This record gives sequence, C-alpha cells and structure tokens, in this order.
Amino acid sequence: MSEKIDVLGIGNAIMDVISPVSDAFLSDNDIEKGGMTLIDEARALDLNQKFSNIGSPQEIAGGSAANTIVGISQLGVRSAYVGKVANDKTGNRFAAGLKEAGVKYATKPLVGQDATARCLIAVTPDGERSMNTFLGASVKFAPGDIIKSQIEAARIIYLEGYLFDQEPAKRAFVKASEIAQAAGKTVSLTLSDLFCVDRHRESFKHLINHHVDILFANEAELLSLYETDNFDAAIKALRKDCKIACVTRSEKGSVIIEGNDMHTISVASARSVTDTTGAGDQYAAGVLAGHVQGMDWKSAGYLGSICAAEVISHYGARPETSIHGLIVSATD
Amino acid sequence: MSEKIDVLGIGNAIMDVISPVSDAFLSDNDIEKGGMTLIDEARALDLNQKFSNIGSPQEIAGGSAANTIVGISQLGVRSAYVGKVANDKTGNRFAAGLKEAGVKYATKPLVGQDATARCLIAVTPDGERSMNTFLGASVKFAPGDIIKSQIEAARIIYLEGYLFDQEPAKRAFVKASEIAQAAGKTVSLTLSDLFCVDRHRESFKHLINHHVDILFANEAELLSLYETDNFDAAIKALRKDCKIACVTRSEKGSVIIEGNDMHTISVASARSVTDTTGAGDQYAAGVLAGHVQGMDWKSAGYLGSICAAEVISHYGARPETSIHGLIVSATD
Repeated sequence: MSEKIDVLGIGNAIMDVISPVSDAFLSDNDIEKGGMTLIDEARALDLNQKFSNIGSPQEIAGGSAANTIVGISQLGVRSAYVGKVANDKTGNRFAAGLKEAGVKYATKPLVGQDATARCLIAVTPDGERSMNTFLGASVKFAPGDIIKSQIEAARIIYLEGYLFDQEPAKRAFVKASEIAQAAGKTVSLTLSDLFCVDRHRESFKHLINHHVDILFANEAELLSLYETDNFDAAIKALRKDCKIACVTRSEKGSVIIEGNDMHTISVASARSVTDTTGAGDQYAAGVLAGHVQGMDWKSAGYLGSICAAEVISHYGARPETSIHGLIVSATD
Repeated sequence: MSEKIDVLGIGNAIMDVISPVSDAFLSDNDIEKGGMTLIDEARALDLNQKFSNIGSPQEIAGGSAANTIVGISQLGVRSAYVGKVANDKTGNRFAAGLKEAGVKYATKPLVGQDATARCLIAVTPDGERSMNTFLGASVKFAPGDIIKSQIEAARIIYLEGYLFDQEPAKRAFVKASEIAQAAGKTVSLTLSDLFCVDRHRESFKHLINHHVDILFANEAELLSLYETDNFDAAIKALRKDCKIACVTRSEKGSVIIEGNDMHTISVASARSVTDTTGAGDQYAAGVLAGHVQGMDWKSAGYLGSICAAEVISHYGARPETSIHGLIVSATD
C-alpha cells in the first residue's frame, strides 16, 4: 500500500447477510425493529439458517465503513480498508469482494480463533432494517493491525464508531487517529449507531474534540451525543466541537455545519424506499468523494444525497440502480 | 405543466431497442460500426426481428435528450420532456416510461400517420454501439408542439442536435430557443452526433453563436464543427462562440470551458466498459443536475463523469449499477 490513496476506512469487517422478512418474523425471533443488536455465534448461525429457510439471503462484504469505502471506490476515488476477518471461507470472500470493488485491503486475517463476523439484516416491508451482529474476528482488531505507512499514505482516514464497542479496537482506533494527525492528514468519524453513542458518549466527545475534523451522524445519534431533544441546541454544541459536521435527517435531507455556516441539503430523489440499509454509509461516501474531488461542502452534500437516494431504492447496502420498470417487452 | 421545473429537454422521442451482437452481425447486416444510420420502417422492422432472433432485446423509452432528462430526474431534479410519438402501443409505452421515471411529459401524440420512432442499437463485445434509427413520428414534431408556457416554466432548456435533421423540427427548435431567451432562461444544446454536425455545420454555428449558453459535444463532434484536427484550435474557436462548453474525450475524461478558464475532469471510475450507449447523455445529465443544484462547473463536471461511468458499466442508456460479483452465495 505504498502508493497514495485518498480515503482509508477503518471498521468492523463484517459479512452482511440480508433478507426481506415479515414483521411477524421480527417478533417471533425477538428482533428489535430498527435497531442493532449484538449476538453470539450460536444465535448468528440460527438466524442465518432461518434467513436461508425464507429464501436466498444476499451476502455482501460489508460493515459500515467498508460499505462507505466501496462506494467511494465506485465514485472513482482511490480507497483502502483496514479491518479484521478470520482465516476462513467467509473471510476469504470478504477480502475478494473488497478487491473486486477496487479497494486496497491488506489486513492480516486472524488465525485459529473466532469466525469472520457477520451481520444478519432483516428488512421489513416498510424498508426498515433490523441488524443482528455477531462481531467474531472483527473485534480481535488490535493496535498491531494499524500500520503507520498505510495511515500516512491516505489523505483522509474514516473511522467507524462501532469499533468503540471493544477496548483493543478502540485503542487501535485512537492510534490511527494520532498517526494521521501527526502526518497532517484529515480524520473523519461516523457515530454509527444510536446505542453505540449511548454506550460510549464521553469517549466519543473526547475523540471529536481532540481528533476529528469531519463528523458524520444522523439526527438521533447527535441528540444522544449531547443528551438533548432539541436539534438546534445539539447543532450549537456541535459547532464548538468540530470543524465540519454532516448530519443526516431522513426525509428532511441533511445539513452540513461548516464553521458558522449551515448548508441545508434536500433529499435527492422521489424514488420509493425499499431498504434504508446503508443510506448513511453511502451519504458519507458521496460527501467524502466529492470533498476529495474539490467540491465545496454544499455540493459534496448533494453528491452524498444522490448516493443515499440510490441505495435506499433497492435491497442491500451497495449501489445497484434498477431501471424501475422502464424496460418492457420489446414486442408490440 | 404550470409548476416550475428545472430542466426541460426537447428531442426525438425514440424507443430504444438494444441487443448485444457479434462483429459478424454488423457486417452481415451492413451496419456501420460506431455510427448512427437513419433507416426506413421496413429496415427497422427487419432489424428488430433479427434482434429478437438473437435473444431478448431491451426496450427503453429513449432518444438522446430523453435519456438525459430521465437521468436528471433520477438525480432528484424536476424535469420535463417535449417530443413526438405516435398514438400506438410503442408510443403509449414511451409516455408511461417517462412518467414512471418522474418526468413531466405532455406532448400530444401524432394520429393516423407514421409509427413511433425506434432506434435499434447493436452493441458489439468491445462495448461500441452502432445505432440504426427509424425516425417515424418523432420528426413530425413541429413548431405547434412548442407550448410557450411549458418553455417559460423551465430554468434550462436542453436541445438535442438530432432534431436538426428535419426542417419543421428545426423550426420548432429555434422557436423554443427564442421563447427561452426572451424569458431570460438558459439554453443548452448537445451536438448529438458527428454526422449530424457534418450535415448541419453552419446552422449549428449560427445557433451556438446566437442562442446557446451551454454546449455539450464530444471531441470528434467539436473537431467536425470547426473543421480542424487540432483540439486546441477547436477549443480556441469555441471560447469565442459560447459561454460554457462541456467537451467529452472518452478515456481522457472531459473539459469544461468557462470563459477563459478550462476545467479538466478525469474519468470517474475504473469500471469495465460494457456498452458506451448513453455515456454522453448521462454526462450531460450529471452536469446539468449539478449546475441546477448550485455546483461550480468543475464539480458539476465530476458529477457528470460519475453518471457517465455508471452507465457504461452495463448494457443500456440508463443508470443501473450492478454489484459486480460482490453478492456471493450466503453459505460457506
């Protein structure tokens, strides 16, 4: 990884397993709708089997930051990824998937311990995602997996808040931030999840204050971070804590805080919502790719909005536009 | 069409019929590789039958400007289209296709005369498109089809050079430009095709000089327009003739001329080239959508580049990203 790259993502390396389900499936299996629940290996295998019984679940090399990094690569921007899989078939497919998407990936796999992580994503008819995550090998990610030359080769590093759920990974994360800062690089962070923010509020605040240049969060995560139910109050606090903050607000679009300015960005499409999985990840991809290409923050936000709009129009966390019925039979 | 729209396209309303073919198919059927040939109804029906014999050709409500306008709509920008179909099944499907894509479309169909136009697009394994166009009803487009209130409701009108192939349509086209200019709107034009430029060089030059604010052309069209083989000489001539010019250069990316400035935009992806059909159309879609959203020309060019990169990665002239093998079997 000696050649220059633009954005390097660091996150939980997780194979996404995605299935459409009924609301009854959620209650029958005690799955919390719309949330992200950590599960153990036995539960992961059980849900995976149930997904297979329903039909053919999709398997995509994922994890939040990996999805963002693949999106960035698809926008023509040089990208790399750092995250831990096991030395098993799923881990090999994860590595192959990233490489096929044009992402540089060279983290050494874990040997002889936990299996590669997987996230079982149940998507209900209303488009909401309910995630059940077995962290497996991904959380054996440790400071030793952070290679100084890899970090220094990147213009921007992009950190996934989910990593804060484990102490060694958190230390790896801080190490990467410090290397990037010392080299004059840009540090960006996504808060990842409402419950993740709740579990690590003070650590996040400290990181944002001391290390983060560009923050990504959705409205709920932001309100949780500052323990308020007032959006304006949260924005006011945010202005003091970081230079650039990109806050997504579902159907209200997003805002980007740039010093004293606030750029308001509307939702970029009237497309139907099929599956909101990965909307935030692809929003971040568009914003970071646009920024790397020299766009101002308002324009980069619009590109983020386009990328988010595309991904919610179909199942799965990666770009895959459909033609929406415009292809019809070629005979009269 | 009383509500405001951002971009209104005017072009030949053509149903695209797209099929992968061998190089032998081109020579066996006297199809000029990489070109656009005008054909009559009998030839159109014959080629359509041969496409059906090969497999299942795709049928998409198209035409160059219509493809651009659909792309603009998919980027969340309010759009409308003006173009002539017949009152037949193909024409009805054309109208339904545009409406489904969120495009306002209200041109009255032609009654009791030629059939709806179709473009039979043969795509060889190298990704090159060879187009055979039966213009049918589309060229019965006349000044009466230009509705003043429709033109005045748009911020930008986007004109397809192909219309210059027929006199009544050309007059309709000039009428639209004059209405737009009188109302202080922006007029944009795509040169459409090398041979089209060759057929109508002086008319195009006059239009560009007197009416056009934003010109789209590829390198070959531009060289033909100014009858030179020197790109720099063509650019120099272009600077005198219009304010903004967006010139695509295949694998060299594109340049946008903005007064004395020249913005160089690289190709936005390393994706494989499957079918170059519609790359120019989607480049224009990205540029115009970005401009409407307030992007500077360099940023709008990058968005154009992204939209073009997406469309060449698969068959057909419309956005439809695939996951490129990242979805694998969900079992170990």
